Amino acid sequence: MQDRAIRTRRKILEAAASVFGERGYQAATIADILSTAGVTKGALYFHFASKEQLAQGVLRAQEGQDPVPSRTCKAQELVDMVMVYVHRLQTDSMVRAGVWLALNQQAADLDRSGPFLTWSETLTELLEAAREQGELLPHVKPAETARVIVGAFAGVQAMSQTLSDYADLGERIAELLRHILPNVVISSVLASVALDGDRGTKVSAEIAAEAETDGQRLETVGG
Amino acid sequence: MQDRAIRTRRKILEAAASVFGERGYQAATIADILSTAGVTKGALYFHFASKEQLAQGVLRAQEGQDPVPSRTCKAQELVDMVMVYVHRLQTDSMVRAGVWLALNQQAADLDRSGPFLTWSETLTELLEAAREQGELLPHVKPAETARVIVGAFAGVQAMSQTLSDYADLGERIAELLRHILPNVVISSVLASVALDGDRGTKVSAEIAAEAETDGQRLETVGG
Repeated sequence: MQDRAIRTRRKILEAAASVFGERGYQAATIADILSTAGVTKGALYFHFASKEQLAQGVLRAQEGQDPVPSRTCKAQELVDMVMVYVHRLQTDSMVRAGVWLALNQQAADLDRSGPFLTWSETLTELLEAAREQGELLPHVKPAETARVIVGAFAGVQAMSQTLSDYADLGERIAELLRHILPNVVISSVLASVALDGDRGTKVSAEIAAEAETDGQRLETVGG
Repeated sequence: MQDRAIRTRRKILEAAASVFGERGYQAATIADILSTAGVTKGALYFHFASKEQLAQGVLRAQEGQDPVPSRTCKAQELVDMVMVYVHRLQTDSMVRAGVWLALNQQAADLDRSGPFLTWSETLTELLEAAREQGELLPHVKPAETARVIVGAFAGVQAMSQTLSDYADLGERIAELLRHILPNVVISSVLASVALDGDRGTKVSAEIAAEAETDGQRLETVGG
C-alpha cells in the first residue's frame, strides 16, 4: 500500500475508534465516521465495505507492530510481550479502542473473537518453545495456560482502566503474572524472570532503540 | 418496598438492560427505556432519577441474591461463590447485563467501579477468614489475590461469551482457578477443594433446595 493510502486508512480507523467510543458500536453509523474522518465516501468504501469491517480494522490495529526482542528464556519473552502490550495500552489510543471494542459484550452482531484467538495462538507458541527448552512444569498445557493469560489480561486491564484510568496497569498485570507463573514455570526460571510494573516501558524503549539503529544502518547502506 | 413497587422497579431495570444492550449505553435514552418498560414517566423517575442511576441499578442487580452455603473450608466457599456466579451469568440475563455494562470501557461517563470493588471486598474477607484457619500459603496477601481473581474473572467470562456464548464458561473459570489456587492455598487444602466446571450448577441446586426447605419451615410456623 502506498504511503498516502496508509495514512488515509489510519485516519479512517482513528475516526471509527473515536465514534465507536463516543456513541457505542451499536449506535455508530458510517455517516458519523465519514464526517469525523473528513475523507470522501469513495475513500472510505475503498478501504472498508461496512461498519463491521471498520470495527474489524480497529480490532486488528494493534497487530503488525515491532516484535519484542527474542530472549534466550522464552518465559521472559512471554512476560516482555505481555508487558509491552501494557505500555501500548497506556500510550496508544488505537490499541485501547481495539481492546475496548473486543470487550463490548453488548455488541451482539460484531465478531470479537479475533484478538482473543490471535493472542492465544501467539502465547501458545511461546509456551511451546518454553516447554522444548525445559522451562515449564510437567503438568502445564500450553494452550490452556495461554487462554487463561489472554482472558485474565482482558479483565485485569478493564478493572485497571475503571479504577485508576490505567495508572496502575503495569502493577496489576505484573501481579496477575506473579499469581500464575509459579504454577507454570520451573523455580529456577521463575527466579530469573524480570517482572515488575515498569517492564513494558523498559522493553519498549529497547525496541525503539533497536528500530533506530536499524534505521541508521539502512541509511548507511543506502548512502 | 412493596411487592408492586419491587415488580415495577424490576420491569424498569429489565427494560434498561435490554435497551443498553441493543443501543449501547452511550446512545440509549430514558425515552427508549420508558417505551420498552411500558411504565409511566412518573413511575420511572420515582425509582431512577437519571440514565446513570438506571445503569447503576443494572450494575447492582446481581447483589442481594441468596448467599452460598457457609463451608468449613473457606477456600471451598470462595470457589463455590465464584462458580455460582458462573451459573448466574449463564441463566440470568440481568446478571449478564450488569457484567457487560461493567466492561463497557467506552462508556467514559459511567462509574463502573461498583461491581469490581464489591466483589474484591467480598473475596478479600473470605481469603482473610481462610488465612485465620491456616488455609493460605504464607506469602499470600488477601486483597491482592482477591483483586487478581475479580479482574481475571471479568476477562475470562468475556472471552467465553465471545468464543462459545458461555457454553464453556464453567470449564474456563475452573481452569483459571486451577492456575491461581496452587499459589494461594496450602497443598492439603488444594487437594480437598471440589472444583469442576459444573460446580456452580450443583451449588445453585443446593441453594435452591435450602431456600425451599426454609420456605416450608416458615409456612409450618405460620400455619
